[in-house]
Order: sequence, then C-alpha cells, then structure tokens
Amino acid sequence: MREFDEASLTEAVIRRFGETPDPRLRQVMQALVGHLHAFVRDIEPSFEEWQTAIDFLTRTGQKCDDRRQEFILLSDTLGVSMLVDAINHRVAAGATPTTVLGPFYVENPPVLPLGTELAARAPGDRLHVSGRIAAAGGGPLPGAIVDVWQSDAEGFYDVQRPVGEAPELRARFEADAEGRFHFWTVVPSAYPVPTDGPVGEMLKATGRHPMRPAHIHFMISAPGHETLVTHVFADGDPYLDSDAVFGVKEALVRAFEQNPPGTAPDGRVMDTPWRSLTYDFALRPLAG
Amino acid sequence: MREFDEASLTEAVIRRFGETPDPRLRQVMQALVGHLHAFVRDIEPSFEEWQTAIDFLTRTGQKCDDRRQEFILLSDTLGVSMLVDAINHRVAAGATPTTVLGPFYVENPPVLPLGTELAARAPGDRLHVSGRIAAAGGGPLPGAIVDVWQSDAEGFYDVQRPVGEAPELRARFEADAEGRFHFWTVVPSAYPVPTDGPVGEMLKATGRHPMRPAHIHFMISAPGHETLVTHVFADGDPYLDSDAVFGVKEALVRAFEQNPPGTAPDGRVMDTPWRSLTYDFALRPLAG
Repeated sequence: MREFDEASLTEAVIRRFGETPDPRLRQVMQALVGHLHAFVRDIEPSFEEWQTAIDFLTRTGQKCDDRRQEFILLSDTLGVSMLVDAINHRVAAGATPTTVLGPFYVENPPVLPLGTELAARAPGDRLHVSGRIAAAGGGPLPGAIVDVWQSDAEGFYDVQRPVGEAPELRARFEADAEGRFHFWTVVPSAYPVPTDGPVGEMLKATGRHPMRPAHIHFMISAPGHETLVTHVFADGDPYLDSDAVFGVKEALVRAFEQNPPGTAPDGRVMDTPWRSLTYDFALRPLAG
Repeated sequence: MREFDEASLTEAVIRRFGETPDPRLRQVMQALVGHLHAFVRDIEPSFEEWQTAIDFLTRTGQKCDDRRQEFILLSDTLGVSMLVDAINHRVAAGATPTTVLGPFYVENPPVLPLGTELAARAPGDRLHVSGRIAAAGGGPLPGAIVDVWQSDAEGFYDVQRPVGEAPELRARFEADAEGRFHFWTVVPSAYPVPTDGPVGEMLKATGRHPMRPAHIHFMISAPGHETLVTHVFADGDPYLDSDAVFGVKEALVRAFEQNPPGTAPDGRVMDTPWRSLTYDFALRPLAG
C-alpha cells in the first residue's frame, strides 16, 4: 500500500511491525508506535517544534559518556524511572522500598573492610552509618554485598570531580556473620542533578528546580534475593517534598542523628560532634 | 508530596510541569508525560528492557554528526515524520503533496545555472529533469528557488561517500521568468536507509527491509508561499508499496521516460538512450 494519509498512517506503521519474529519486541514496537503517534496527534507539532525535539534528543545522546548518562537523567526527571521501579516491585511485603538507581552508580566499586572511613580528608561532618541486612520476613543475610555511593558535603559525586582529584565516596562492603555492616563517611548534601545539558535546559524552561534531597545510595545483594536498589534520605531536608526525580518514599526517610563528642559505636573516640544513621534493610526473596 | 506510588506517580509528574511559564511548552511536556507513562504502563518493561531502551536512544544520539542524523531516521522509520507532515498539510487544495525531508538535506547547496549537468562523470543513465513552479490555483512563480538532492545510480548520497570523493548530487536552481527549471543528472537508484546504526538494528530485528524506492528530493520556495518539501518517485520501482519511511504518495509517482538517442529538450544531442522526467509543482499560498 502507498498513499498513507493522516487517518491511515498509524495503523500502516503498526502493521509494518507485524512480522517481527520476537513476540515481545513486536509488542513493544507496536505499542511504541501507537503511543508515540497518539502523542504527536495530541500536540500537533509544527516542523520547527519537531526539529527542536530531534535536536533535544540528539544532544541528550551526545551528552553521554563513561561518567554521564543524560538519557537516564531524562527518564528520572520525567518520572519514568520511578514508574519502571514501581511496576517491577509490586509485591514487596516487608521488603525495603526501592527507588531510582540514578546516573552516578559505577560498576565494581572499591571493596573495603567494614568500619572503613570513606573520604577521611573530605570536609564535612563525620557520619557513622550502620545497619543490618535481612530477608523480608526472615533472618539475617550474612555476607550480603552492600554497595554505597553518595555526594560529598558540597553536593558532588566523585565522578563529577576531575579524575584523580575526588575522594571516592563509594565502596563495596560485605556484611558480617550477623548481616551487619558499618562504615564512616561524611554527611551528604542536597544537590542539583547535572544542569549543564539538555535535561538542565528542560528543567529551567519548565520552571522546575533541579534539587534532590540529601541521601545515601545503597545497592544490596544476597544469594536467593532480589537485589535492592534504594536510598536513605536525610529527614528534615527541604527538598524531600519536591525531589527532581520523584524518588522519595516515606519509609526511606531517616534522621541523621546529632551526637556530642564521645565514643562512637565502633569505639572510636570523637573530639567533635558527629552524626549517625542506622537503617536495617529487608531484601525480597526471589520467587520460586 | 512524597511517597508516589504506581497509581499516583503520573499525575504527580504532570502537576510538576504545571508551573511551566510558556503555555505551549507546558502543554507539550504534560502531554509527553501522559503518553510516555501510558506506553510504559502498557508494556511494563523489566529493568533490563528499560536499560536497553536507554542504551538504544543514547547510541542513536551518538551516531549523529554533521553528515548523519539518526534521530530523524528513527522518526522516519517509525512513521512519525510523515505524521508530522500530514498534520501540517491538511488544507492543500491543488498544491503538490508533501513528503519527508529525510536525513540527507544539506544547508546552502551549490547555486548552479539552469541546465547544469550534475555529476557529469558519475556512472548511470543521463536524466533530463524539467518542470514549472506555480502557485496552487494560480500563475507561475518566477524566480522560485528549487533545491534538489538525490542518490546516485548506486543508491548513495554524496554525504555518504568519503569527503571530496563524491560528485555533488545536490544543487540550488532559480526558476526562470516563467517559473520553469531544468537540469541534467543521473537516474537515482532505490537504496537502503543507513543500516550501520541503531535504526538499522531495529529494522533488522523487526524483519523490516530498509529500502526506499528511487526518488529525487525537491525543496521549493517562493515569497508568499509555503515552502514545499517533497520527492518525485520513479514509477515502476519495486519498493513503492513498502517504502521504509512511509513516504510515497500516488501523486508523487511519475515515469522517468526512456528516450532513444537524439536531441534533448535543451538542444543537447544525445548519442545514447537517455531518460526524462517532467513534473510541475504547485505551492500553497501562505494564509493571510
């Protein structure tokens, strides 16, 4: 068939994907065409607007490199990442809620012993973080792998600093025989998502602030359990109700307690006030 | 508000765009969130599928450069470009139908006198192209600007050849006092859209061929008239009914006539058989 008009075009494109060998890919592509065409029919873009969209998407791809993923950031700021997260965590009785991975996770973080102080020379208040990993509705998970990463006290991740100049605020710990972990770090700061790319332009043009409330990322895995990707947010942060990526869940907000000088839980004697965070995580057992 | 769940998230994201100062941008972003979330809810992607989509979009952007626009190609092959075209050309009584711009247009083509032979040393059958530019329902448009570009006899555009090695199969002509234009070129070939990028992967995975029927591109402009972006397709081409970008319209298909050796319309004496194409274009007067 030739001569597709405004009425017949969408069905013709959907039909063209009808011979896709893989049934899941066929479903995805036909749904994509339907929803994408519905969006175009809804807004009726001019050619200039369509060209602006092409340019935006092109620049978003070109902003990506080994240390920057602008399309994930776009997905995050449009609420898509949290929607994918919600769809994939419908049955989570007793398990710790999940939230976005975000663009700053780096594969194979440094493996460090429990109790290590991250970024010992970095400015900021010292923070002792501890907790326990258990199965949802079950016992502790000895040897669970706990990846942590966070911004520094100025709101930057190490991968946003020049290579070699940043204290590494990321690590991999192995929980002990009781499923417990603990380490020292600095109190993270609220921070803006990167605004020097197309996503920053979008946020500015739409009057949205780019801030995320202060948090520490956790990715926790143990055999026989679904890997948990989440954050713990600092209670009292002014951006908890307007997170630029819609990632806050009430159960993930926790006080970063103020403590006077004295002896910390691991026996370290602190000459200055210090902070502490305790959070116990529950992993969802894999089905079957 | 915090604690967005699968049910409440989409409305929360739409509300977040409610303060967008520009009303058109607000409309576009809110519609985008609604349709994009509907697509995600429809297909319920796994994290791995979502990551595959992020990676596909990233690589699509990174495939683009000064000579390649993979996002336009994606728009073309998903039928979006033709839908935008249809939406913007609803009232076109008597005007020549439009079709996609495609990814191979280059700004500021070489300005050449009428009658020039493009790619005089390129292999392929010689083709004489001529026609007349007029207003839809009106008289000729003297001095109309006629941009033409096309593939060569092997199906490649000049911008797909190494720089400096390609005959330039593109030009800008100025119609004469009667709105007429004419030039010599080679007969274009059917060709595949570029398949060495993400769009090529998509076509292959979905069992779609990448071919476009042979055609010559025209972009024609005249003061007081809407610029016409179209093709003229070669009648008899085997891909007219399955154009990879859904661009064929019956009124744009025309015979590339066979002619025996002899004298061409411009007086040139041809020792070998030659081809000829005549097409008269009608431009839509601008409203108001």
